[in-house]
Amino acid sequence: MDTNQRPTACVLIIGNEILSGRTQDVNLNFLASNLNDLGVVLVEARIIADVESAIISAVNECRTTYEYVFTTGGIGPTHDDITAECIAKAFGVDLRQHPTARDLIAKLCNRNGVELNSARLRMANIPVGATLIDNSVSGAPGFKMENVFVLAGVPQIMRDMFQGCRQSLVGGALIKSRTVTAYLAEGTVAEPLRALQEQFLQVEIGSYPFYQEGKFGTNLVLRSSDAPLLEKVCGAVFNLVEKLGGRPEIMSS
Amino acid sequence: MDTNQRPTACVLIIGNEILSGRTQDVNLNFLASNLNDLGVVLVEARIIADVESAIISAVNECRTTYEYVFTTGGIGPTHDDITAECIAKAFGVDLRQHPTARDLIAKLCNRNGVELNSARLRMANIPVGATLIDNSVSGAPGFKMENVFVLAGVPQIMRDMFQGCRQSLVGGALIKSRTVTAYLAEGTVAEPLRALQEQFLQVEIGSYPFYQEGKFGTNLVLRSSDAPLLEKVCGAVFNLVEKLGGRPEIMSS
Repeated sequence: MDTNQRPTACVLIIGNEILSGRTQDVNLNFLASNLNDLGVVLVEARIIADVESAIISAVNECRTTYEYVFTTGGIGPTHDDITAECIAKAFGVDLRQHPTARDLIAKLCNRNGVELNSARLRMANIPVGATLIDNSVSGAPGFKMENVFVLAGVPQIMRDMFQGCRQSLVGGALIKSRTVTAYLAEGTVAEPLRALQEQFLQVEIGSYPFYQEGKFGTNLVLRSSDAPLLEKVCGAVFNLVEKLGGRPEIMSS
Repeated sequence: MDTNQRPTACVLIIGNEILSGRTQDVNLNFLASNLNDLGVVLVEARIIADVESAIISAVNECRTTYEYVFTTGGIGPTHDDITAECIAKAFGVDLRQHPTARDLIAKLCNRNGVELNSARLRMANIPVGATLIDNSVSGAPGFKMENVFVLAGVPQIMRDMFQGCRQSLVGGALIKSRTVTAYLAEGTVAEPLRALQEQFLQVEIGSYPFYQEGKFGTNLVLRSSDAPLLEKVCGAVFNLVEKLGGRPEIMSS
């Protein structure tokens, strides 16, 4: 994992439904891919419960460790949505009704013909000092507090909010990747692959076995910000796999 | 999240491929569901990189915090498989070739007609004091070191290994769940739902909005180890949603 001259990030998935197994998370994969495409290195992700102390301590640990923190979940109108108040507590600031957020939610209620009740107004409570993140799907905004981006948990809304965050993110050199698929077991390619990794430290070589229809194969994933070197090492891995009888195939990522 | 009289667990997903967005993790959801079914509360999960210091510190933090820790990934034969040596360092013990593990791997090589090379023999290196976890899919075992279960990252193998761990896990009272699907927005049900949650603290009520074909709905998930109370609260939620015009449907989980 090459964090050299690239900003780092952590994702905090907040939600009991992921930890109970009820829901398969898909937000992490989206954020991971998109951060990667921006040249931001996702170093860690945590899935934590809807528990105040857990959220506050994870936010405080991660916001001081990484350049960017993204949270998903817990900003809706129900009793189990406690992310905004936890962020306020983590930063030691008040949670107050934000006039613009209130207007956005009022507009949403008007459009949908529903009442602007106290539960919906809770979504306008934003930590003092935070800036809003637009939500063109359902109106109620997310927010950015210093380096912490607080996004919704519903995937469609989270994705929409992330698009609105892009302009505030400063990435580093882009990582390109190549995958060489090898139809041979990992153990067959492991030794010469280690030698290649030691020879070319600027290319991160990952080996990911797969198992399909009773047979093993290995995806060899090469990642680097140095495009010519990446192509060189990709060629070397291709030749290695071919020599071992692994019928190599190259994919662009 | 009711951890009362139930053992707690943490899952550590080790792998750069999840953090780069290349691979969608599916192991967490399997472990979460299965631990839930055993009455073990999964309190947290972390996805961490193939970096020695990150693995060691996460393992040491989590093994002292939770009753059980499950790791996935990083126990294959390639240079980026460093989990076993990190576990040994985390526990301050040596990593040594385990005779039974060696035999299992030798048998696997013999069966598949491949060489028992040094890369494959690395998979027989097990922290001193650990016990092996069977792998009926591909032979190379996982291991259990005190309360840390070290499993493969390939989903088919991880699942097989987990079956072999079940007998060492002591669970608590089983959590049952009911889901009431409501075809109305979260904000409409939020206030009376909060009142119900405050009235029945022994039933955890979660509210999970969904967005399909341009319309919002809400899954209200009720979880408790007290089955009669669960049914009672489920009935109350059903009536509430019906009163609000939300066409409730009950699902068993």
